[in-house]
Amino acid sequence: MTYELYYWPGLPGRGEFVRLALEQAGAPYIDLVRDTPSGMSALTKLMEHEAAMPPFAPPFLKDGSRIIGQTAAILLHLGDRLKLAPRDPAKRLWTHQMQLTIADAVTEAHNAHHPVAVDLYYEDQKPEARRAAKSFREERIPKFLGWFERILGNEKRGGKWLAGRAVSYADLSLFQLVEGFRYAFPKAMKGHETDFPRVVALVEAVRKLPNIAAYLGSPRHLAFNEDGIFRHYPELDA
Amino acid sequence: MTYELYYWPGLPGRGEFVRLALEQAGAPYIDLVRDTPSGMSALTKLMEHEAAMPPFAPPFLKDGSRIIGQTAAILLHLGDRLKLAPRDPAKRLWTHQMQLTIADAVTEAHNAHHPVAVDLYYEDQKPEARRAAKSFREERIPKFLGWFERILGNEKRGGKWLAGRAVSYADLSLFQLVEGFRYAFPKAMKGHETDFPRVVALVEAVRKLPNIAAYLGSPRHLAFNEDGIFRHYPELDA
Repeated sequence: MTYELYYWPGLPGRGEFVRLALEQAGAPYIDLVRDTPSGMSALTKLMEHEAAMPPFAPPFLKDGSRIIGQTAAILLHLGDRLKLAPRDPAKRLWTHQMQLTIADAVTEAHNAHHPVAVDLYYEDQKPEARRAAKSFREERIPKFLGWFERILGNEKRGGKWLAGRAVSYADLSLFQLVEGFRYAFPKAMKGHETDFPRVVALVEAVRKLPNIAAYLGSPRHLAFNEDGIFRHYPELDA
Repeated sequence: MTYELYYWPGLPGRGEFVRLALEQAGAPYIDLVRDTPSGMSALTKLMEHEAAMPPFAPPFLKDGSRIIGQTAAILLHLGDRLKLAPRDPAKRLWTHQMQLTIADAVTEAHNAHHPVAVDLYYEDQKPEARRAAKSFREERIPKFLGWFERILGNEKRGGKWLAGRAVSYADLSLFQLVEGFRYAFPKAMKGHETDFPRVVALVEAVRKLPNIAAYLGSPRHLAFNEDGIFRHYPELDA
């Protein structure tokens, strides 16, 4: 069975968190809008159709006849199927809880350059973004990374990964989050990274997973850019 | 077994989504910070302690020895235990997916008065909030409510509630979301409500559930105020 991922083309965005899980598991999937000429109209149709369970926004995943929206819900679903989450229900929920916190960080990272409205251009909210980005860089990035550092510093978790012995989708997502922070705020991150050595080590461990390394070197992998969630505007990293 | 809810005192906030589920189910719980003199120091201690699974932020729930953070994850957990979610795994995930969309709407509602930084006062971001609130009122509220209206208009779902025959935590949360919109943006909502009759009917059906009605009339229920997520600043509803 081939999974179908629906996401906007041309940016890694929230779709990337799903791609990393599919790639790590070696699961068969198509990135519908990128891989098929009719992908965009299929995406629009699924969002506007009268299904009982319509997605609110991309990304969403088609798994057989099911359509699942919300990045964290997609990963909750895939975590079980692709063995990217612990089997123990409490640890499984904990993995999801970490993912929801990553989702909050992603939303705030987008808000740093779009504090006024998602529907407006960055150019229409530059002064506001300048203030929002300063607070995000100085207060929120250390708070989020500090939380993960604390988790990784706790030896009771039973292994080198966030949820214990085996890599989970939360590890893959933390990799993408940190890479996004580095892309958007290289100067600020230079100052922060020494405070979070365990997070940095985890990011490097994810990068070296054979399937992830192969994916990152492939044309399937999209670089960050200024259409995405993590955008590098030098004036927001000053 | 008595659940322990940990949340900031004095505002309904995100804690209210958990309270509504506990109240509807008639589950025994204490609202620790409000109900016990040492509640606030217990909250701080749990957030700063070296547990393997620390919460990132309130609300969090103690269920026996487990501590669960993130509102949507708490409800995913309680949904099973309190029979406030369908048993079918696909419908259970769908209920969670709706909850995650409500969580996004809640975050955006807070952003409407705090677009620059959660750590700053509203008074320090008033011009930015004016622009953010306009976009939220005019674009985002109709988009969120329109999605729920479409779901409720689909007869395939098999009952009057969002997830089918039985009331779920998503129904309770949609009630709270709409009540919050009404409190924060009474003028804008007057214009919107006629467009979403099914959502309005669902909100009234939740209000009339005997346990919810009893709770809303009790001193346990906190009114909205300007310390919370949904704040009424007339200049943001102009």
